[in-house]
Amino acid sequence: MVQIAVVEGDGIGQEVIPVARAVIEAVRPDFSLYDVEVGYGRWKRTGSACDAETMESLRAADAILFGAVTTPPDPEYRSVLLQIRRDLDLYANIRPIRGDGFDLVIVRENTEGLYSGIEWREADRACTLRVITEKGSRRIARCACTLAKQRRHLTIGNKANVLKSDAFFLEICTREAEEAGVPCKAHYIDALCLDILMHPDRYDVIVTTNMFGDILSDAAAYLVGGLGLLPSANIGDKHAFFEPVHGSAPDIAGKNVANPIAAIKSAAMMLRHFGDTEHAAAVEEAVRLTVAKGTRTVDLGGATGTREFGEAVLGELGAL
Amino acid sequence: MVQIAVVEGDGIGQEVIPVARAVIEAVRPDFSLYDVEVGYGRWKRTGSACDAETMESLRAADAILFGAVTTPPDPEYRSVLLQIRRDLDLYANIRPIRGDGFDLVIVRENTEGLYSGIEWREADRACTLRVITEKGSRRIARCACTLAKQRRHLTIGNKANVLKSDAFFLEICTREAEEAGVPCKAHYIDALCLDILMHPDRYDVIVTTNMFGDILSDAAAYLVGGLGLLPSANIGDKHAFFEPVHGSAPDIAGKNVANPIAAIKSAAMMLRHFGDTEHAAAVEEAVRLTVAKGTRTVDLGGATGTREFGEAVLGELGAL
Ligand SMILES: CC(C)[C@H](C(=O)O)[C@@H](O)C(=O)O
Ligand SMILES: CC(C)[C@H](C(=O)O)[C@@H](O)C(=O)O
Repeated sequence: MVQIAVVEGDGIGQEVIPVARAVIEAVRPDFSLYDVEVGYGRWKRTGSACDAETMESLRAADAILFGAVTTPPDPEYRSVLLQIRRDLDLYANIRPIRGDGFDLVIVRENTEGLYSGIEWREADRACTLRVITEKGSRRIARCACTLAKQRRHLTIGNKANVLKSDAFFLEICTREAEEAGVPCKAHYIDALCLDILMHPDRYDVIVTTNMFGDILSDAAAYLVGGLGLLPSANIGDKHAFFEPVHGSAPDIAGKNVANPIAAIKSAAMMLRHFGDTEHAAAVEEAVRLTVAKGTRTVDLGGATGTREFGEAVLGELGAL
Repeated sequence: MVQIAVVEGDGIGQEVIPVARAVIEAVRPDFSLYDVEVGYGRWKRTGSACDAETMESLRAADAILFGAVTTPPDPEYRSVLLQIRRDLDLYANIRPIRGDGFDLVIVRENTEGLYSGIEWREADRACTLRVITEKGSRRIARCACTLAKQRRHLTIGNKANVLKSDAFFLEICTREAEEAGVPCKAHYIDALCLDILMHPDRYDVIVTTNMFGDILSDAAAYLVGGLGLLPSANIGDKHAFFEPVHGSAPDIAGKNVANPIAAIKSAAMMLRHFGDTEHAAAVEEAVRLTVAKGTRTVDLGGATGTREFGEAVLGELGAL
């Protein structure tokens, strides 16, 4: 039986994940879902945001559905999200963005680069080592090429005009694309953050290093009016983790106003990951129909609550 | 007598800089302008994009007006722009962006961070050291605070939730802002690249590290339809360097179609640098009037050539 670890996390994670969970339960009653508590709330209560035992229960899952965690301005607190990505070796952060006239996917390397964690202080300076490995670059390039082969073409976001580590990344990605027979172009990341906004239709699959992908995906979210509606997948060879791109939004938490669409779409990405394209498409269509019929949360100009939106989606699913 | 080194560089630099030069000659006949050749063209001819003697003639100037240089896909070629920024210690890259309802300035640290040049290859990886020094952070923070004090407030773009080197940068900038009595907020750089597009009116002076500033200023250029119209200054304690943000645009070079507005506005920034706010404002107003009267280059939907646009601006200046 497919085992799904469900992590609500903090803030609105506790509101949008129950909705996404109900959607999965509706279409896949055969899946077994179990709750795992991680995050800032847990850290405040127990002193640990995610201990070894918790990590084991995440590791045991066939997939993880994740809400959001709060990163407090506390220097003692290291993001549990980064810890999970690292520990489960979730090396590909996949963020699809679709809109009128464009359909692109950002494939972000998720384990190294500036996120190496190799950092130190000297008397008068602080240093972070940006590490680009051959293995890390090759596996993310292959992941992006596999996607691009099913789609159209590949863009390699890089800053090889300044960084030797990116010249290395670019070289490896270019070689992988050639071997895979995928049409590919290189684009400097600064110019790309602008051009993706000016001409989103020119892009399809974009592969880039960790921090550049972090920034590029936020900038590109402007194309769809912000982070609110975007799902994502963090994929490794052994584990898969699905989360809305938005954060825990403490300012609107607990008010039943958060938009659960990103969480529901993340659940749909999870269904697709298990090969269940049929239910994934049905869930996406149910969301589309719900919105088209005017059922909208406040961020989209409506007055429907988080829970009520979820019920409307379940209604559409039943009717489909 | 004020000595200005004029560098046309490559591509459209050779078309837009003569226009900017004529504007300066018109308003400041007392300035002495001399040409300096650097760039890819020179590299192809002589094997050196900018030798020690050339650097000396740049160093001797009171300010440098710079066009653009081509960075060829040649691993042997290191950007002459980076060399000049480094050698003249031009630590503040200042990029103002103004539009309908917003008026902001990005203050980018211009000498360290990921541009440290400390890079190496190991068997299976390539590394770049991101170096944030106390001195480097303090002087860019002071520069930004001086600007913010004359204006409204400061935003510190950072990724302190991941990078210890940015926690260091943030700490120093926050302290400098407090000491200067400047209202200041921290903002994560990924979220900032989105929020600057969603709510540009919320920002005034933004200070950030080198690579983040590189990316943020390109993303923010979307607010004004691209890089085409943006001027910039690279300022150090001893030297000052003014350049349009756009590149050498080889595809449109030599056709008298490039828009010289960014170059002219960079010249206006230079005038302001010398305390000549009167002529700086007159030049900006002449550009505004020229465009308002329908004289526009192709990128703005007109048919006026680069040279003819320059003549129209000179005409407006004479009439002002
Ligand atoms: C919260 C933060 C550590 C994280 C990141 O930097 O990866 C976030 O910005 C993201 O994009 O998932
Ligand atoms: C050309 C390149 C080296 C340069 C940089 O990275 O600084 C450019 O992007 C800029 O913003 O001036």
